[in-house]
Amino acid sequence: MNNLNKTTKFLVLTILLLFFTLNIISQTDETALKTIYKSSLTNGKSYEWLEHLSNKIGGRLSGSKNAELAVQYTKNELEKLGLDNVWLQPVMVPKWERGEKEMAYIETEGSITKVNICALGGSIATGKNGVTAQVIEVKDFNELATLGKEKIKGKIVFYNRPMQADLISTFNAYGGCVNQRYAGAMEAGKYGAVGVIVRSMNLRDDDYPHTGSMSYGDVSINQRIPSAAISTNDANTLSAALQQDNNLKFYFKQSCVQFDDVQSHNVIGEIKGSEFPNEYIIVGGHLDSWDLGDGAHDDGAGVVQSMDVIRLLKESGITPKRTIRIVLFMNEENGLRGATEYARVAKEKNENHIFALESDAGGFTPRGFSFATNDTNFNQVLGWKSLFKPYLIHYFEQGGSGADVGPLASDTNVLAGLRPDSQRYFDHHHAANDTFEHVNKRELELGAATMTSLVYLYDNYGVNPISKQSTLKD
Amino acid sequence: MNNLNKTTKFLVLTILLLFFTLNIISQTDETALKTIYKSSLTNGKSYEWLEHLSNKIGGRLSGSKNAELAVQYTKNELEKLGLDNVWLQPVMVPKWERGEKEMAYIETEGSITKVNICALGGSIATGKNGVTAQVIEVKDFNELATLGKEKIKGKIVFYNRPMQADLISTFNAYGGCVNQRYAGAMEAGKYGAVGVIVRSMNLRDDDYPHTGSMSYGDVSINQRIPSAAISTNDANTLSAALQQDNNLKFYFKQSCVQFDDVQSHNVIGEIKGSEFPNEYIIVGGHLDSWDLGDGAHDDGAGVVQSMDVIRLLKESGITPKRTIRIVLFMNEENGLRGATEYARVAKEKNENHIFALESDAGGFTPRGFSFATNDTNFNQVLGWKSLFKPYLIHYFEQGGSGADVGPLASDTNVLAGLRPDSQRYFDHHHAANDTFEHVNKRELELGAATMTSLVYLYDNYGVNPISKQSTLKD
Repeated sequence: MNNLNKTTKFLVLTILLLFFTLNIISQTDETALKTIYKSSLTNGKSYEWLEHLSNKIGGRLSGSKNAELAVQYTKNELEKLGLDNVWLQPVMVPKWERGEKEMAYIETEGSITKVNICALGGSIATGKNGVTAQVIEVKDFNELATLGKEKIKGKIVFYNRPMQADLISTFNAYGGCVNQRYAGAMEAGKYGAVGVIVRSMNLRDDDYPHTGSMSYGDVSINQRIPSAAISTNDANTLSAALQQDNNLKFYFKQSCVQFDDVQSHNVIGEIKGSEFPNEYIIVGGHLDSWDLGDGAHDDGAGVVQSMDVIRLLKESGITPKRTIRIVLFMNEENGLRGATEYARVAKEKNENHIFALESDAGGFTPRGFSFATNDTNFNQVLGWKSLFKPYLIHYFEQGGSGADVGPLASDTNVLAGLRPDSQRYFDHHHAANDTFEHVNKRELELGAATMTSLVYLYDNYGVNPISKQSTLKD
Repeated sequence: MNNLNKTTKFLVLTILLLFFTLNIISQTDETALKTIYKSSLTNGKSYEWLEHLSNKIGGRLSGSKNAELAVQYTKNELEKLGLDNVWLQPVMVPKWERGEKEMAYIETEGSITKVNICALGGSIATGKNGVTAQVIEVKDFNELATLGKEKIKGKIVFYNRPMQADLISTFNAYGGCVNQRYAGAMEAGKYGAVGVIVRSMNLRDDDYPHTGSMSYGDVSINQRIPSAAISTNDANTLSAALQQDNNLKFYFKQSCVQFDDVQSHNVIGEIKGSEFPNEYIIVGGHLDSWDLGDGAHDDGAGVVQSMDVIRLLKESGITPKRTIRIVLFMNEENGLRGATEYARVAKEKNENHIFALESDAGGFTPRGFSFATNDTNFNQVLGWKSLFKPYLIHYFEQGGSGADVGPLASDTNVLAGLRPDSQRYFDHHHAANDTFEHVNKRELELGAATMTSLVYLYDNYGVNPISKQSTLKD
């Protein structure tokens, strides 16, 4: 009876202690998040940095002069923040140039209709006389196979499968279409096509063609065919024209060139952890962008938000327990070389990356995060969800993370991607209208604060405290 | 024992029946919402209607020719939908005209800096020579009282309290500032000011001045002073100039005129309920807008979304049990006459308005609803929240609803307002850049689908089924 009483007393005290501890932690966390959000919205630097990156530098395709300017600029700005270390990590990247502005038109019974196209990243040129051929419109690769060589040979294949409008996440709609862009030339080439025109990955009807990466796989150089995107308005025009006249001709000319790889860099900065310096928390985005716009949303936003994560932690008086590292990856768009190299070196050095967060879905109002991790870790983060409610952050789901942090995956760590509102993302993605004026300051700053808050929580608690708690029990 | 067995059997059967019924209902509801969202995103009409309202008609200030064109246009479009009734409800509205474009500048030591202003709605003119005076900058009415007549008499009062950037809802930030605009002239007049300049209700620094309603209360006509809004950039310029030279002069001229009230109309359409025709469900927005832009967000969006609610119900094959009524209110902006008249007539006719939903917070991505109702009704709607999760609708809170549905409040009914993402709303609100191109088609359509889904659920279940269930128990 006495023993039982003792046990009961002990249990009650433990529960009370746990209750108070949790309560104190929760209040501290609430205050920390409040400070972080306030600081970002009243005193953030992300927008100012983005203005420079977008308007003073501009499009930053891997291997370009602008990409190197962006490396220097972000390195200098990180150095100003007084981090413990800032350095450049060398990486070889592809270099592809668009050359002269592309030209294209539809030719029907003597009348000519100009259309807006752009070469896909990695495509070959057409030669200076361009390509003129009949057009065959298809929705997918199966249709290509059904038509076969006989109907395709010598023609331009026009991929016109639109993004599915009734999907709520526009990224899902993108995922359902992007193979036309990425592998369209490789597939059409098999049947003797002489060129490829792809409907732009855009849910809106407008006049901007959207570039993006494409691949020839192992097709030999002299078997490759040129490939371009056409604006959604002009895809509709071309399709309607084909309904009228199946024999119309399409002309396009592009002058792009693939050069040898050149050296570039990831930009890295870190604050050493005060308690667990060997546990690494990574936040990042990619420095390179396509060349048509100034890459404000993709991924200038992710770059400057990540920079502000580090700054906001400092501004909010938080001394990280774990090492917080920012990585601005080079060459996400057409090679993923920066991410691959970063992960290789991290593995080589046996660095324990417990958590990595990427922002690469635009500078729009943040809605939450997608987590690539195991159920235990996911349950841990679900426990923090209510802290985000005042900031209207509600989306905590298991799923993908980000292309650049992807190579860091392990069985035990957590990779995450910021998930902003996606409705307008593909209005701008890889197009000439991905520009600074389409980023809203507050939306960008809310994203930076949301990222900082999650980094703060992972820094404070580490990954998977449940197992640590069991350790304490022993 | 036998009796008890019977009771147990009865209870088990009842529970099973209830379980299956609920389950069937839930699956039907899921399917209904899926159909509604798909229909809006692939076959919606809201964007097409908005294009006409914004670009073909334009700004629709009460009493203007454009307001009457909007009445005719929406009435005709509703008639095309084959509703059971469409009619115009007469209402007398104020008529105020801006007149010639305003002019204003800062005069310091012989140098002149032009600034962007606009007359506030309801303000008097300055007279053709304009007003020139020294400026006194204040943050609020307390500061005005502290300064007193001595320091204010003969001067222009410059209200420069900015919207609070760290509030997540920009509507809360607006609420904290708008008294400067609404009552600024009334208050400053008490101390002998000769004019009022108000910082625009805008969280962004830009060159657009924002108009909006102001009131002189019971100040007699010859005691009234003119009042204008200044763009946020120019408010910053003026404030900085005052720091340099406290004696600078400010000049402004505006030619606005208040006319006698004129007759206008609310536009109303309805589908009679098949089971409970005397239970009314209302959906609406306001037809009038300010004159500077084309009123696309405020409240063209709410108008066309409400129109599409009715159409989407039909498209989705839903036969309403209750009477669904669309009300396009006139004169929300500067009088609320349409809403007042609608509520008066509804009361006179003893119409039982069980649920009223307004969209008047812009055509941005919907996040959820705010409900003005009792706890029982609020708990009912919380039971439906999970149905909205696939559409990223997460915000279900008790609070305000909408200005136009407000007068319909009762102890037992439910009033609600759509709550879109608010971050960009005050970039455009009441300004020349509240225009069609700033509305995203998908965001608008998601809002229409979200409204339709809630109307569908209220139509299906009515308000407060818990009390109905108790009735069945008797």
